[in-house]
Amino acid sequence: MKLSQYFLPTLKENPIDATVVSHQLMIRAGMIRQTASGIYTWLPLGLRVLRKVEKIIREKMDEAGALEILMPTIQPAELWIESGRYDAYGKEMLRIKDRHDRDILYGPTHEEVVTDIFRKNVTSYKDLPKNLYQIHWKFRDEIRPRFGLMRGREFLMKDSYSFDIDETNAKKTYNLMYETYFKIFRAMGLKPMAVRADTGAIGGDLSHEFHILADTGESAIYYDKKFEEENLSIAAMQELYAMADEMHVEEKCPIAKEQLTSRRGIEVGHIFNFGLKYSKAMEASVMGPAGEKIYPNMGSYGIGVSRICAAAIEANHDTNGIIWPSEISPFQVILINVRSGDELCDKVCEEIYSALQKQNIEVLYDDSKNSLGQKFSVADLIGVPTQLVVGPKSAAAGKVEVKNRKTGEKKEVDISALPGIFNLNR
Amino acid sequence: MKLSQYFLPTLKENPIDATVVSHQLMIRAGMIRQTASGIYTWLPLGLRVLRKVEKIIREKMDEAGALEILMPTIQPAELWIESGRYDAYGKEMLRIKDRHDRDILYGPTHEEVVTDIFRKNVTSYKDLPKNLYQIHWKFRDEIRPRFGLMRGREFLMKDSYSFDIDETNAKKTYNLMYETYFKIFRAMGLKPMAVRADTGAIGGDLSHEFHILADTGESAIYYDKKFEEENLSIAAMQELYAMADEMHVEEKCPIAKEQLTSRRGIEVGHIFNFGLKYSKAMEASVMGPAGEKIYPNMGSYGIGVSRICAAAIEANHDTNGIIWPSEISPFQVILINVRSGDELCDKVCEEIYSALQKQNIEVLYDDSKNSLGQKFSVADLIGVPTQLVVGPKSAAAGKVEVKNRKTGEKKEVDISALPGIFNLNR
Repeated sequence: MKLSQYFLPTLKENPIDATVVSHQLMIRAGMIRQTASGIYTWLPLGLRVLRKVEKIIREKMDEAGALEILMPTIQPAELWIESGRYDAYGKEMLRIKDRHDRDILYGPTHEEVVTDIFRKNVTSYKDLPKNLYQIHWKFRDEIRPRFGLMRGREFLMKDSYSFDIDETNAKKTYNLMYETYFKIFRAMGLKPMAVRADTGAIGGDLSHEFHILADTGESAIYYDKKFEEENLSIAAMQELYAMADEMHVEEKCPIAKEQLTSRRGIEVGHIFNFGLKYSKAMEASVMGPAGEKIYPNMGSYGIGVSRICAAAIEANHDTNGIIWPSEISPFQVILINVRSGDELCDKVCEEIYSALQKQNIEVLYDDSKNSLGQKFSVADLIGVPTQLVVGPKSAAAGKVEVKNRKTGEKKEVDISALPGIFNLNR
Repeated sequence: MKLSQYFLPTLKENPIDATVVSHQLMIRAGMIRQTASGIYTWLPLGLRVLRKVEKIIREKMDEAGALEILMPTIQPAELWIESGRYDAYGKEMLRIKDRHDRDILYGPTHEEVVTDIFRKNVTSYKDLPKNLYQIHWKFRDEIRPRFGLMRGREFLMKDSYSFDIDETNAKKTYNLMYETYFKIFRAMGLKPMAVRADTGAIGGDLSHEFHILADTGESAIYYDKKFEEENLSIAAMQELYAMADEMHVEEKCPIAKEQLTSRRGIEVGHIFNFGLKYSKAMEASVMGPAGEKIYPNMGSYGIGVSRICAAAIEANHDTNGIIWPSEISPFQVILINVRSGDELCDKVCEEIYSALQKQNIEVLYDDSKNSLGQKFSVADLIGVPTQLVVGPKSAAAGKVEVKNRKTGEKKEVDISALPGIFNLNR
């Protein structure tokens, strides 16, 4: 993509209403713009990150045997009346009347809709287990939307819902999701941690929150230092002490103080086993081997997809801007033409640009007439892992400067050797 | 994908509330389920088709230089008050009050939001042209939702919005989109037709509707037979007589009766040039070369993404079910195990299944215990282009029966030759 043809409105200054670093940087890097309070438009650069996050989640969920569906954003109120949550949910639910005065709502979560689909389409125990997921937009009418995507109103979520024949199998599915979540966040180049959590409005008694570790994280989490050992089994991990803030009570903590770690984290996932709560309330049953009625044991598993984009920035930035993990970076390379308009620079840049594209390396080519200082600032701000700098001197010598955004390390490389260095990095 | 692990709730009978063939077949084939009036859940099979349609649109829009963004589904009412459409739009707009009693709405279209983004982020004529698109969910509160996805309330749309410095350039962009739309629909294996259309609520004076030709189509369209000539230029096409139903008046038709064709079509796209309507009303201007204020000339371009899934079925089906164009088929192959549980059949099927997957051929493997008649019916119903049938006899002989869903043609093929025949078909 050539910058001259792109839509990348970057800003030098932090917007006054942005108080957390991810919000500041997403606005400044031209990733998002606010359309209404807590409601954002994704500009091309931001959308590329969002899609990469989505793709990793989809791949890992598919690998875990989950099936992708897509439920509507608008739901009928009746389903929530059936489950008993319509009154319980409170003002975060965006309640709407349609033109025929029927009560509908913008879904804040989809347990009811998926249970309705299940009961109408699955009849036999032979069809279990099922784990249905979607990646879709949700709305929660936060009383004070703030921190950009961290506490927005319209947000992208991966939510999945599992149906198992009994508690033992449901626990297996729960553990599979627990494991899959670690895989998902690690595949994004992020450092996840799972802690026991309160089950809140969803119900049930077994629940973990997943946090991305970041010094600027909004939550404190507490866990046994043994978590830092490598190759722990899931069973071993779940045995260890690991608590969300509200679950950790110092006086009651069963492990020694020196064994306890406290870190800051950003919650990006939450998994629940809630047993029969919805299947019973909504009369979703299957027929068992002997013709008996069986209520499936259910769980739900959420990931804040849009929130991850912000969390990744909280965990990966410096004073100059974002430092993307390459796995979710909007581009792999930014190619900086030091003197756009100079015949040699333009020629060499065009050659590099098309050579990289042929190798399917995603490259943003800064062919603009901006000052060099501005070009370097934008490159650092948007945080693409590798910067290639082509100036008149280096071009004449058949060289290009390669800068690593994270380490700041620079080296000169022969242009002819270029595509190769990216293959190594992958 | 193995059918035993999939979620494909097919039905033998047409649902009583489904009166058009695409609605009947999408329900019967387990592609969608209704969650509320005019509001559907996409099951795995349907979602695969939707994603393929989306992918083709995205590729062609990118090729045409459009930039993908994502605007929110929920919009603030203020923007519509500014453009003057808040009162004009009527009851199809889903109007909502949030918890602070602010007027918001579920976007039926996005001219206002995109113009707001443009005015806040684009300042110079040098940044033009821009063509911003999204593929996202919209809501129109139809008074009588019907015909399944044809006239639903929540639907997936590709909408793009162009900004040009003057009318001449805007017309060029319009023509590029006109051409791109033909490419998009043809890339889906569909037969599109463009006709002059009324501009309606969007405004402006230049507009074309795009229809997929289908005998069961809801609209009559009228056009010059010369359209059927190959390799017509865009300019030549736009000169020819081609009218939407409401634009065609027999007495005023300028071409001879024997030159006129009338066909049935399903509207799947609509393009507009509306000039300065929104840029002026919303004070979206850029600075020109001499520092003067320039209001960009705008156009908008819609495609009903979810509707295409239905239109493709209207245009491609028989009494047994859907006949997918291979370009948007949910799978390329269905592999039918005549006797699941038989050692040889299972072994041969597993081998074929993994060989095809290695070739990246999307295959649905019917490993179920259903009767053979049922398996054949489901295969015809879901309309995958190629059926592979493995029974005990053919398996013993190292053969497989290959059936073409469209022609019904059957042939025996050596199993060893299998992946090859698909490469030929692609």
